Amino acid sequence: MRAMSFIHDDFLLSNQAARRLYHEFAKDEPILDYHNHLPPKDIAQDRQFKNLFEIWLEGDHYKWRAMRCNGVPEDLITGKASPRDKFMAWAKTVPHTLRNPLYHWTHIELKRYFGIDTLLNESTAAAIWEQTEAALAKPEMSAKNILRSQKVKALCTTDDPADPLPWHEQCAKDGFEIGVYPTFRPDKSYSVHQPEAWNAWCDKLSATSGIEVSSYGQLLAALAKRHDDFHAIGGRLSDHGLNVAHANPVSDAEAERIFAKARSGTAASLAEMDQFASNIMLHVGRLNAAKGWTMQLHIGPIRNNNTRLAKQIGADVGVDSIGDWPQAEPLSRFLDTLDTENALPKTVLYNVNPGLNYVFATMIGNFMDGTIPGKIQFGSGWWFLDQKEAMEWQMNALSNLGLLSRFIGMLTDSRSFMSFPRHEYFRRTLCNLIGKDIESGEVPADYDMVGSMVRNICFANAKAYLGLKTA
Amino acid sequence: MRAMSFIHDDFLLSNQAARRLYHEFAKDEPILDYHNHLPPKDIAQDRQFKNLFEIWLEGDHYKWRAMRCNGVPEDLITGKASPRDKFMAWAKTVPHTLRNPLYHWTHIELKRYFGIDTLLNESTAAAIWEQTEAALAKPEMSAKNILRSQKVKALCTTDDPADPLPWHEQCAKDGFEIGVYPTFRPDKSYSVHQPEAWNAWCDKLSATSGIEVSSYGQLLAALAKRHDDFHAIGGRLSDHGLNVAHANPVSDAEAERIFAKARSGTAASLAEMDQFASNIMLHVGRLNAAKGWTMQLHIGPIRNNNTRLAKQIGADVGVDSIGDWPQAEPLSRFLDTLDTENALPKTVLYNVNPGLNYVFATMIGNFMDGTIPGKIQFGSGWWFLDQKEAMEWQMNALSNLGLLSRFIGMLTDSRSFMSFPRHEYFRRTLCNLIGKDIESGEVPADYDMVGSMVRNICFANAKAYLGLKTA
Amino acid sequence: MRAMSFIHDDFLLSNQAARRLYHEFAKDEPILDYHNHLPPKDIAQDRQFKNLFEIWLEGDHYKWRAMRCNGVPEDLITGKASPRDKFMAWAKTVPHTLRNPLYHWTHIELKRYFGIDTLLNESTAAAIWEQTEAALAKPEMSAKNILRSQKVKALCTTDDPADPLPWHEQCAKDGFEIGVYPTFRPDKSYSVHQPEAWNAWCDKLSATSGIEVSSYGQLLAALAKRHDDFHAIGGRLSDHGLNVAHANPVSDAEAERIFAKARSGTAASLAEMDQFASNIMLHVGRLNAAKGWTMQLHIGPIRNNNTRLAKQIGADVGVDSIGDWPQAEPLSRFLDTLDTENALPKTVLYNVNPGLNYVFATMIGNFMDGTIPGKIQFGSGWWFLDQKEAMEWQMNALSNLGLLSRFIGMLTDSRSFMSFPRHEYFRRTLCNLIGKDIESGEVPADYDMVGSMVRNICFANAKAYLGLKTA
Repeated sequence: MRAMSFIHDDFLLSNQAARRLYHEFAKDEPILDYHNHLPPKDIAQDRQFKNLFEIWLEGDHYKWRAMRCNGVPEDLITGKASPRDKFMAWAKTVPHTLRNPLYHWTHIELKRYFGIDTLLNESTAAAIWEQTEAALAKPEMSAKNILRSQKVKALCTTDDPADPLPWHEQCAKDGFEIGVYPTFRPDKSYSVHQPEAWNAWCDKLSATSGIEVSSYGQLLAALAKRHDDFHAIGGRLSDHGLNVAHANPVSDAEAERIFAKARSGTAASLAEMDQFASNIMLHVGRLNAAKGWTMQLHIGPIRNNNTRLAKQIGADVGVDSIGDWPQAEPLSRFLDTLDTENALPKTVLYNVNPGLNYVFATMIGNFMDGTIPGKIQFGSGWWFLDQKEAMEWQMNALSNLGLLSRFIGMLTDSRSFMSFPRHEYFRRTLCNLIGKDIESGEVPADYDMVGSMVRNICFANAKAYLGLKTA
Repeated sequence: MRAMSFIHDDFLLSNQAARRLYHEFAKDEPILDYHNHLPPKDIAQDRQFKNLFEIWLEGDHYKWRAMRCNGVPEDLITGKASPRDKFMAWAKTVPHTLRNPLYHWTHIELKRYFGIDTLLNESTAAAIWEQTEAALAKPEMSAKNILRSQKVKALCTTDDPADPLPWHEQCAKDGFEIGVYPTFRPDKSYSVHQPEAWNAWCDKLSATSGIEVSSYGQLLAALAKRHDDFHAIGGRLSDHGLNVAHANPVSDAEAERIFAKARSGTAASLAEMDQFASNIMLHVGRLNAAKGWTMQLHIGPIRNNNTRLAKQIGADVGVDSIGDWPQAEPLSRFLDTLDTENALPKTVLYNVNPGLNYVFATMIGNFMDGTIPGKIQFGSGWWFLDQKEAMEWQMNALSNLGLLSRFIGMLTDSRSFMSFPRHEYFRRTLCNLIGKDIESGEVPADYDMVGSMVRNICFANAKAYLGLKTA
Repeated sequence: MRAMSFIHDDFLLSNQAARRLYHEFAKDEPILDYHNHLPPKDIAQDRQFKNLFEIWLEGDHYKWRAMRCNGVPEDLITGKASPRDKFMAWAKTVPHTLRNPLYHWTHIELKRYFGIDTLLNESTAAAIWEQTEAALAKPEMSAKNILRSQKVKALCTTDDPADPLPWHEQCAKDGFEIGVYPTFRPDKSYSVHQPEAWNAWCDKLSATSGIEVSSYGQLLAALAKRHDDFHAIGGRLSDHGLNVAHANPVSDAEAERIFAKARSGTAASLAEMDQFASNIMLHVGRLNAAKGWTMQLHIGPIRNNNTRLAKQIGADVGVDSIGDWPQAEPLSRFLDTLDTENALPKTVLYNVNPGLNYVFATMIGNFMDGTIPGKIQFGSGWWFLDQKEAMEWQMNALSNLGLLSRFIGMLTDSRSFMSFPRHEYFRRTLCNLIGKDIESGEVPADYDMVGSMVRNICFANAKAYLGLKTA
């Protein structure tokens, strides 16, 4: 009887074919979490979390945002209230998140990590706080043991080329069997319109790379040096957060001029920033292509909309939303420029605006070149889109306009060690979707063919495509 | 057997959970129709309608548009044909509207107001005309009695600040127990690019407000005076029709310059209009915030596309459609400007382009401030979107990206006293959607929790949020 | 048992009402394929195809694109590999197209043309190649006999006004009973920004029309002459491929200036091209209106994104995708300009970006004029959108925002004689959609009313609307 628990064996599996696909082909696949925002320090130090606040609420701006929508004052969200009070404010909010993915994630995470079947709300919160506090104190709930029990075979954090990578190095040195790799994310390298922060960043890069960044050419060299360093420790992906693709490159001489202007402390214009960024992006694209890396483009959010909260608590605090800029032309031009010079790496396009899913899902088909199946990927439902409705849209778009069978699948994109069940969530959604097609006769009931497709999307495609070493 | 009547008790309720939610929690809730275009004069004078033409076709450009699509000549739509002939032309069109919401609305309205189960078409039209003519002559079908029988507890019409409010005043003076409130809609106040109409409007505002509108400062003062007047009679909402949010404010001096230019009869440029409108919108936003009002932004239609019909029969005659301008940046900037000065009122964003639902549904989350749950609302499916498919999209977007539980729900937006069953239509759709989630196990079958959410969305949320006095 | 064959009698028909609608009302309707890209030469010469490569792969960039996505090298797609090897590469790709319309089309085409029930894959490919090779050699598989057996009553190819129409003439002369009509597609007439190709085209038009194209006025005259020629041979449609509607007309004098500039070999700017194109489009619109033709606007793709493949194998090779330009304003202006001068012809708007379906579906309602039902049509799901999901979106948008009952329905848009089952695919999808509404009680179970709507959408609406002579 389903009524026994909300998160039951067949959660989200609405039909018999879906259940068979999930239980026989998807459920036991390991995890390759090739894009997240976990702190590598927590892994290297094998952090033990004190309570649900630390492992769940500390860094999760999804939950912060939901609490604000529920009228919770900022003090109980990111302010000075105690961890327990913040958790209680979250628990009161949970019943108000019905139909939001947070409601599902909350209970799937409580179930998988703590075996809790109780629905979280104001009246159940205290007992859950205590039960989880005790559980988290046990060695099996350390950061490394969580990764082990979740069957993570490798993971990729998100890292600035200007930062050293001591924690990734320590993981390697300590012989941790699960790959913990950095991802090369050079977004700050072209913020020439914000010269103060950018110059500080250049100084940091100089120190980290050992190359004095006093010219555009040296900036390229320093980025290349760090790209080598990331490669040496196992990194095989770059990542880029973009409003719109930068596709207006300029000559090296012009780039040097913009560099000099910003390095001397004068803000570049937004147009100059776009030009400079275009050059940097091409540079990183070429580095990626040369080493067989994968380039991830996360495109489209409009960030930090709330000036008041930005001043109060900083950037990336849950006041971002979905942008509606036209994307096709610059994105096409950027990819074509690299393709034309035979320097287009494997690329994953993540789209945050579902109104553009078909634009992205058709864009990838323009730049396949016969070297590898699914060379250009339409990335999994991202940020606001990593919930059932939008994951289905992404998979339907990819199916109808490309090859779902070549999809490299899900990643958590999360800051929390509690988020690995998002892979389970994705797999259930995937199996449910295909299962419905089998039931309706739109996909043949050939479980060898369909089951192997499912299995590949869960793990094997990503492993073959990304070329990361796995446990 | 459902075949007995098209509109039956479980119309649109496809599953058991939906039926329980609707019949136990939604059906009996009263109505707070906080946005419509009903003529207050009809209420104050307790109008008795002669026939279906008067109550149904006279002002409904949805029906006009459908008739045009069906090849009906304009004479039978807005021209000189007799009311009965126009009705007959409409009746002939009805079977051609299958799968259009008009087909549902038509029959739900005939059923609820007249107990008619017959499908309207050419052959049934004459009998229906006669039956309804007789029914409409009875006292229980007067404007006020319709509001009573529909359980309307309060309603808000849409009003120009330059217009006096005699009919709202009379409703109050007559002690009509149902609140009939004006909504402050100052769209004409910034049409400085159309100086002839705008100057006439300024003159009218001068007369109504008692403040001579001969400067920008006086315009602001006159608007504030009328805002007070609207408040005194119970108004608690402003409303704004926008292609795109105005978010380019200028200094008072510059606004005075634009004012003087237009007041002297010279058309302002479109850029100047946008600047001037930005200032006015901030002004009204501040007035709203100061008095605890709610600001409604209706964003995105492209209006009056057909010059021929505009010349022939005027504006707002059913030749509007959905625009595709980018919306996120200016909307964010407008809201942020008010938020930064602590003057962002409760705000409802209505979006007319479903391709932007996710853009709007995420925008609201940027400006919640812990003062009230759901402070910024993603408004109910509007205009072309107030049908099942698009209402589901709006509710799914709000659910996935915000808190459905805090939604203030439906309004008719109508010009007809026959349109109150749109609340029923909405509630059935809401219950059907959530019921499906219960059946699939995506929402827990906890009817206390889910039922109270449904009930709140039908009435209580709007009542608590808007602060209107209700019967 | 469905398991017997993938393509069975009730394929895609998920409910009883759908099955009844399809089998009783849709299945036996003939085909009016009013827009495709078939080579008229193949018809006139009654081509006999050698093998599946010739009839299936030779010109189908959908399949090419899928093969590229699957990592197949270009040599096996458009290169020098043998027809059989290319077919084998395609067969290996087929199982990877699960959930893509190609998977359905492939098997429905094999079933309908050859009675093959086997799923195509690497291991079944050889036998299928041989079986189909034998079948294609039979007279009943000639081009004309395929048209006959598919119950095609008339078809419209896509033709350049500068080209003579020998094959259409021969079909007529030979007394072929199925109408084979040209469609007037003057896209090249305004490519004044590409003077080399444009001048060659003008020279060709001079020769074909007998009017020396040495001025803008003569260009208009030559186009009008060819419009007459197309009319004489039975053509009743024009067709236009557009990124965005051209809606910036200039004076005749200015158009002459742009003409002279380009005719003398100097490239016009993109803005000038847009102006020149606006004039040409108005000219063709007027010609269409005068003769009662239908104008088709195919709007929104971003074409030939891949420079490498363009150089290697040319244009239109499967590296196009969906654009995201704003469309509403220029489209409204273009239609309004013609409407204002009473010269708006019947018009079909085809939209390639599903994020804009509602924009297009509401645009059509602005320009209906009471002369004919559904005068402005929202065209069937096009290119990337001619699959089940997107056809449902198009029909739902049209239903909710206009009159589905007046829809002129499907066309193949194909380059292959194997593609006629796309009409069957469309009809099954249509019946399934409406059937679901009957089952849920959203559409009355009145099979006379609903069945005749279905039948009309399959054939009669297009026949009445387009005015083409049919067999």
